[in-house]
Amino acid sequence: MHVATVDPPPPRLADPAADANATEEYYEKLVSPDIVNGISNVVDYLDARHGIRIKDLESMPQRTLDTIWWPFVQHGTVKGSEDVSIIDSAYGDFFSVARPRQNDTPTSSLVFPELDSSASWWTQTLGHANPTLTMAAARASGRYGHVMFPQASHLPALRLAERLIQKGPGKGWASRAFFSDNGSTGMEVAIKMALRAFSLRNNVDEKEKKKLGILGLKGSYHGDTIGAMDACEETVYTCEWHEAKGYWFEPPTVDFVNGKVVINVPASASGKAHTSVAKSLSWVYDVEDRLHTPLARAYAQYVRRALDKIEATGQKIGALIIEPLILGAGGMVFVDPLFQRVLVDVVRGRRSGKSKEWSGMPVIFDEVFVGLNRIGIESAGPILGVNPDISVNAKVLTGGLIPLSVTLASKSIFNAFLSDKKSEALLHGHSYTAHPIGCEVANETLKQIDKLAQSEDWMEAKRKWTVAQGQEGEEQSKVWSLWDPHFVSEVSKLPQVKRSMSLGTVLAIEFEDSAAGKLSPVRVFALD
Amino acid sequence: MHVATVDPPPPRLADPAADANATEEYYEKLVSPDIVNGISNVVDYLDARHGIRIKDLESMPQRTLDTIWWPFVQHGTVKGSEDVSIIDSAYGDFFSVARPRQNDTPTSSLVFPELDSSASWWTQTLGHANPTLTMAAARASGRYGHVMFPQASHLPALRLAERLIQKGPGKGWASRAFFSDNGSTGMEVAIKMALRAFSLRNNVDEKEKKKLGILGLKGSYHGDTIGAMDACEETVYTCEWHEAKGYWFEPPTVDFVNGKVVINVPASASGKAHTSVAKSLSWVYDVEDRLHTPLARAYAQYVRRALDKIEATGQKIGALIIEPLILGAGGMVFVDPLFQRVLVDVVRGRRSGKSKEWSGMPVIFDEVFVGLNRIGIESAGPILGVNPDISVNAKVLTGGLIPLSVTLASKSIFNAFLSDKKSEALLHGHSYTAHPIGCEVANETLKQIDKLAQSEDWMEAKRKWTVAQGQEGEEQSKVWSLWDPHFVSEVSKLPQVKRSMSLGTVLAIEFEDSAAGKLSPVRVFALD
Repeated sequence: MHVATVDPPPPRLADPAADANATEEYYEKLVSPDIVNGISNVVDYLDARHGIRIKDLESMPQRTLDTIWWPFVQHGTVKGSEDVSIIDSAYGDFFSVARPRQNDTPTSSLVFPELDSSASWWTQTLGHANPTLTMAAARASGRYGHVMFPQASHLPALRLAERLIQKGPGKGWASRAFFSDNGSTGMEVAIKMALRAFSLRNNVDEKEKKKLGILGLKGSYHGDTIGAMDACEETVYTCEWHEAKGYWFEPPTVDFVNGKVVINVPASASGKAHTSVAKSLSWVYDVEDRLHTPLARAYAQYVRRALDKIEATGQKIGALIIEPLILGAGGMVFVDPLFQRVLVDVVRGRRSGKSKEWSGMPVIFDEVFVGLNRIGIESAGPILGVNPDISVNAKVLTGGLIPLSVTLASKSIFNAFLSDKKSEALLHGHSYTAHPIGCEVANETLKQIDKLAQSEDWMEAKRKWTVAQGQEGEEQSKVWSLWDPHFVSEVSKLPQVKRSMSLGTVLAIEFEDSAAGKLSPVRVFALD
Repeated sequence: MHVATVDPPPPRLADPAADANATEEYYEKLVSPDIVNGISNVVDYLDARHGIRIKDLESMPQRTLDTIWWPFVQHGTVKGSEDVSIIDSAYGDFFSVARPRQNDTPTSSLVFPELDSSASWWTQTLGHANPTLTMAAARASGRYGHVMFPQASHLPALRLAERLIQKGPGKGWASRAFFSDNGSTGMEVAIKMALRAFSLRNNVDEKEKKKLGILGLKGSYHGDTIGAMDACEETVYTCEWHEAKGYWFEPPTVDFVNGKVVINVPASASGKAHTSVAKSLSWVYDVEDRLHTPLARAYAQYVRRALDKIEATGQKIGALIIEPLILGAGGMVFVDPLFQRVLVDVVRGRRSGKSKEWSGMPVIFDEVFVGLNRIGIESAGPILGVNPDISVNAKVLTGGLIPLSVTLASKSIFNAFLSDKKSEALLHGHSYTAHPIGCEVANETLKQIDKLAQSEDWMEAKRKWTVAQGQEGEEQSKVWSLWDPHFVSEVSKLPQVKRSMSLGTVLAIEFEDSAAGKLSPVRVFALD
C-alpha cells in the first residue's frame, strides 16, 4: 500500500453546492480510486480469511471425528461433536477452546479460555507457547535443521549431555547420555542397557535372556512400546504381544488423611495392613533418619523373602526399575521413599558378582514424570540417598514443546557394550536422534528452570513448608510444594476427601465417592 | 551506540607542530573517549565470543567422547577425536564441519562443507535448515506450543490427517490417522492394530496371542523398539528380549547388472536360483502386466507352500508386514514388486473369515523409508496395485526437522477397537502425541513436495527415464529417478561394480570387492 500526498483542503466558498462539490473533489483527491480498491481488496481478503477460520472452527469437531484416531480414547464412547475440544491456540496455563455459539449474536466470541489442568499430560513447564522456547526452536532450526548423530556432535546435544551429567540428574554417577524420542523409547534403551550388563556378568544363556525379569512396583508405567510394556504388570495393557516379565511389589504409600501425614503399609509388606501417623512430611522424606526403624527392617524382610521365592523358581531378574517417589500414570500414588531405598539396598546387597561398580542388578530410575523439578527436585537420588545405574528423563526436558528423551548411564553400564564388534554395540537409534531443535529447547528449558529455582516464589513456598512442619529455625524441609501446605492438609479433612498429597507442582486429591476408589488427581500446569 | 555530530576539519596552519596538535584535537573531537570505550567493549565482546566459539570447536571432539553414547556406534572401535564429526551448522545438502587447523595460519578456516550423503539417515527432504520449515515450526510453537491430544483437535493435526487420508498415501483405503513419535513407534502401533483385528476375528486365545507371528521378508527392518524388532528376523539385533516372531521370505530382487535390468530369483522362490533379463525397468514395475507370467505363478506357489507349512505347525500368523519396493536399512535391496503383489494376493486369498473388509490377515506397509516421494511416488500402493490395511509414514513426513510419525488404518481396523469399554481401546499414546510443531512442519513439507512434483526438474527426469526405456511417445515410465538413467545403467558396467539401481532420490551401487558382498549404497540428499 502507498500513502497519497495531497494538498491542504480548499478554502470554503459561499455557494453551498460549489462547497459540496469542492468537498467531494477534496476527498477524491485525498483517497484515489486506486487506494479505495487497495483497501477493499485487503478488507475482502481479511473477511475471506475470517470466514475460512470460522468455517474451520465450526467444521473441525466433525472432521476430527471422521479422520483422527486418538491415543488412549475409546471412540465407541465418544458421543459426538460435543465431546471434541477444538484447541484454537494456547498460551500460559490456558488453552483457547472453540465452542459453538450460544445464541445468534454475531459478536459473541467463539473461543474461550480453558485451564490445561493436566499440563498436557505433564509436559508443560513454562506455559504454552513460551517465547524463549519458540526462539530456541527457531534458532536451532535455522542453524542445523536436523543433522545425523552417529559419530557426530553438535553444540545443543553436547551441552545438554554435559548439563544432565555434570550438574543435573546424572551428577555424581552418570557417565553417558543416550538420546531418543520419548519416555517410552528412553525406557526401552534403559532396559536394553540393563539386561545386557546383567547378562554379560551373569553368563545368562540365550533362552534365559528372553525371559529375564524386571523387579518393580505394582502400578508402574513406563510407556506404550511393547518392551516398556513388558516391564509392567499384565493388567495395565491389552496388547496381544504384551507379556509381563518380572515381579512387582505392592508399594507402601504416603498421604495426608484427616490433616495428618500417614504411611499406609500393605499387608504383603509387613504381615498385616496398617497405617501409621508420621511426625511430619519432612520426616517421611528424611530417608537416612528412618533407615534403622523397625519399618525399614520389615521392608527389607519383605523384599528379601520375595527375592528368595523368585530365585527358588529359577527365574532370573535382570533389572530393578522404579518410578521414584510417585507412580504417575498409575494414579499419582506417592510411594513411601523408605521402601524404595530399602528395595535398592537389598537388591544391591545380593550376589554382587565381580564388579565393584554395580551389584545385584542394574537399577533404573524412570524419572520421566518426576524428574527435572516437576516435584521440586531435579532427581529423586538425593532424597532416596541412592543413585541409579541408569535413568530416563523426558516430558519436562523440552519444556512442553516437542518430543525428546535422554537415557543416562554409568560408566560400568557403558563399558558392557564396549568391544571391537559392531554387533555388540547398543543397536538402537531413531532417525531424528538428538535432533538439535529438541536439544536447544531442552537447554533453554533447564536454564529457565534454574532461574525459577532461585525465584522468590520458590523460596517462599519452601519457607512455608518448613514453617508448616514446625521446623522454623531448623533445617529446611526435605520436600515442598508450590501448593499451600495449609490447603493440602485442610483439604484432606473434608468429608468427601479420602486423602490428599502434594510435592512440587503436583497435587493429588482422592475423593471418597470416586468410582472404584480411584484417585482423582488434580494436577497443576506450570512450575511457576 | 550513538553517532557523534562533529564540526568540519580545522583549516591547515603553517606551523607543523600546531598542525599536529590540531589534527589530534580534531580526531579527539571526532571520536570521543565514550565512543572509543563503547567500540572497544563491543570488540572485546565479539572477541570473547569468538574465542569461546573456537574453544568450543576445538574441545568438542574430546567432550563428545567423554559424555555422548551414540546410536548404532561401537564406541570400542572409535579411535579418538579424529573419528568425531563436529557439525557446526548445516544448510541445503551440506554440513559445515569443523576440522583441526592444518597449520598455524590464524586466518585458515576451521569449518568445511561436507555432503550429507545419507540425507541424515534419509530424513532430509528440502535441505537442511529450510527457511519455510523453520517458519512453520516457529508459527506452531508460537500459537500452541504443545497441546494434549486425546479428545482434542487442532488445525495442524487435522489438516495433516486429512491430507494423508484424502490425497496422500491413504487415498482410497485409509479412514483414520494415529499419531506417534517415530517410525518405530508408528510400527508398534501398526502391529497392535493388526494383531487385535486378527485376534478378534479368529478368536485367538490368550496364550496364542503372545506368540502370534508376522509374515515378512528377510532383511526387513521396522525400528528399534522391542515390538518393532520382534517383527524382524533374529539376526538383525542383539537385544536380550528380542524374540523374532514370524516367518520371512527370501525376496527376489531387481537391479541393473552390466547395463541390463535383471530380476534375481532365489532358489527358495522357484526351485533354483536364476536371473532373468527384463524388457525394461518400467516393465518390471508394470505389475498388472506381469500377473499372468509363469514367474507370478511360481511366486504364488512359493508363498502358498510356505503358509501351508507354517499352518501345519499350528503357528498362527497375525499380519503381513512389508517395506514396499525397497528394504532400506536392510541394505537398499530393491524387491521385485511382482513378488510383493503376489504375496499380498495369496495372503488375502486365504480363509477370509466373516468380514469383507480385510481377508486372511491385515496387511501393513512400512513406508517409513520409501514413502512421500523418497522414491518418486507418494506410496507404493499404485505400483503394486494393492492397498494395505495399515501403513506407516515418518522420516520425510517432517521434511528432516523433528520426529513425527503417522499410522494410517482402514475403517475395518479402526472398528476392531470400538466398544463401550475403555480397556478395549488402542491403549497407546506418547506425551507429545500429534505435537502441533511436527504437524505444521509436515503440512508445509507436503506442500513443498507437491510443488517439487510439478517442477520442470521432475518432469525432465521423468521424460528422461521414459525415453531411456524406449517408451518415447508411449505412456510415461512407471518408475523414474532424479539420477540420470544413462549413468545408473552405465555404472553397472564398470568392472568394480556388481550392480546398481535407482528409484526417485535413491541410488544404490554394490561394489564387487566390498566386504562380504554387502551393498555399499550411495544415497542422495534432497528431493530437488
